[in-house]
Amino acid sequence: MIKVVLLGAGNVAIHLAKAFDKAKNINLVQRYSLSNTNDGYFDGSIPTTHDISTIYKADIYVIAITDDAISTFSDQLNHIDGLIVHTSGSIPLTVLKNLSRSGVLYPVQTFSKEQEINFDHIPIAIETADEKDMDLLKSLVGSISNKIFEINSLQREKLHLAAVFANNFSNYMFTISREICKVNNIPFDILKPLIYETAKKVQTLNPIQAQTGPAKRNNKEVIEKHLSQLNGEQKEIYNLVTRSIIKKYNQKEK
Amino acid sequence: MIKVVLLGAGNVAIHLAKAFDKAKNINLVQRYSLSNTNDGYFDGSIPTTHDISTIYKADIYVIAITDDAISTFSDQLNHIDGLIVHTSGSIPLTVLKNLSRSGVLYPVQTFSKEQEINFDHIPIAIETADEKDMDLLKSLVGSISNKIFEINSLQREKLHLAAVFANNFSNYMFTISREICKVNNIPFDILKPLIYETAKKVQTLNPIQAQTGPAKRNNKEVIEKHLSQLNGEQKEIYNLVTRSIIKKYNQKEK
Repeated sequence: MIKVVLLGAGNVAIHLAKAFDKAKNINLVQRYSLSNTNDGYFDGSIPTTHDISTIYKADIYVIAITDDAISTFSDQLNHIDGLIVHTSGSIPLTVLKNLSRSGVLYPVQTFSKEQEINFDHIPIAIETADEKDMDLLKSLVGSISNKIFEINSLQREKLHLAAVFANNFSNYMFTISREICKVNNIPFDILKPLIYETAKKVQTLNPIQAQTGPAKRNNKEVIEKHLSQLNGEQKEIYNLVTRSIIKKYNQKEK
Repeated sequence: MIKVVLLGAGNVAIHLAKAFDKAKNINLVQRYSLSNTNDGYFDGSIPTTHDISTIYKADIYVIAITDDAISTFSDQLNHIDGLIVHTSGSIPLTVLKNLSRSGVLYPVQTFSKEQEINFDHIPIAIETADEKDMDLLKSLVGSISNKIFEINSLQREKLHLAAVFANNFSNYMFTISREICKVNNIPFDILKPLIYETAKKVQTLNPIQAQTGPAKRNNKEVIEKHLSQLNGEQKEIYNLVTRSIIKKYNQKEK
């Protein structure tokens, strides 16, 4: 049985708590959070503290707080001798260098409070400062997911950058799409199956092969018509992404 | 029973043929295509011709060919007195103005040859030049999908523009994401569940609410680090999209 203390109250903490709760060989002994804003999202039976000096002894301490606060917050944990891991994609392991045993457990997923998530299929990138802690972290992570990837801080930084394009920027394309619909009194619902299929397609197909549309076909007439209907940043983004797609597919043909 | 002739051999034609074949009150009497390249993707029992002068009499003729060819191709059909519809998002109905009865049937979806599609849930935008033909088109489309939207050419043009962002551009974000993975020896599989969840989220959540990431939080440190790792168009796209997200979420807070 691996004893875990979870530190945090945000979306990642909410979903990790559920996954730890469900896992047979994990005992979530306590949760720490600064505020009690999200307490309702957690199983009430998990002992909770708002005072860092009262945290229990555990095998692993999982920090699931906002990126910017990890470094400062971890300084308060330097008396602890368990393994302390953060859960951020963009923060290197070295920010925990003042701790005796440290690591990273980065679930590569986007979390919302309300949306249920099945952790089994969520890829989790892991790293430890000391190779000796790897087995412990692996057995924790292996209890909640069957997709574990050992990745160093440099690779994780790149992975996080790739995730920004895959998630943040694609979501922003959906936002612009919805804005165009709204201005023109078109229900955004019409586009939802298309969005779903776009993501489904690249589960099995390389996105290079999945690309369609006027930019890929270098259909100048349609592109010009589209540009004439856009303004400001929407137009800039259309123009830049289109030019980039045209270039990519023309290069390929050479 | 609605008699249909399908004209085309591309991805849209392949999937429409399957949907027409399955529908109880549609009789797909014939298929026309210029070449026989994709014949293998069609049910062999559908009579097929490569000679436009030999097409059968039908209630509706569905043109599912490449956008640029629709106008010229439709001139060969001006002796026909059935309803002739094209299936393009970006082409106005007026390109069929030389035909006596014309309309549009635009399935808002991305099609690949191999990927099976359930037409029931695919939104289909329809339009007819003459209001009198609307019932016929509705009964055809209603036989393959339960999501029919009556939309005029102007709105369809905007819908197609919105679809370019929702599908083409989001797919291109996946492409860049995959490139970053590849260069850094990270398996792209790690990001697939994230991509899937991104699309799933906006099925119920407004993408404005679903947005996460450094740009939304205006986390300058992470943004600068990311920019320093990118070059060329990837950097330009990162910069432009990030600036646009920052602006949107700061405006909201005002």
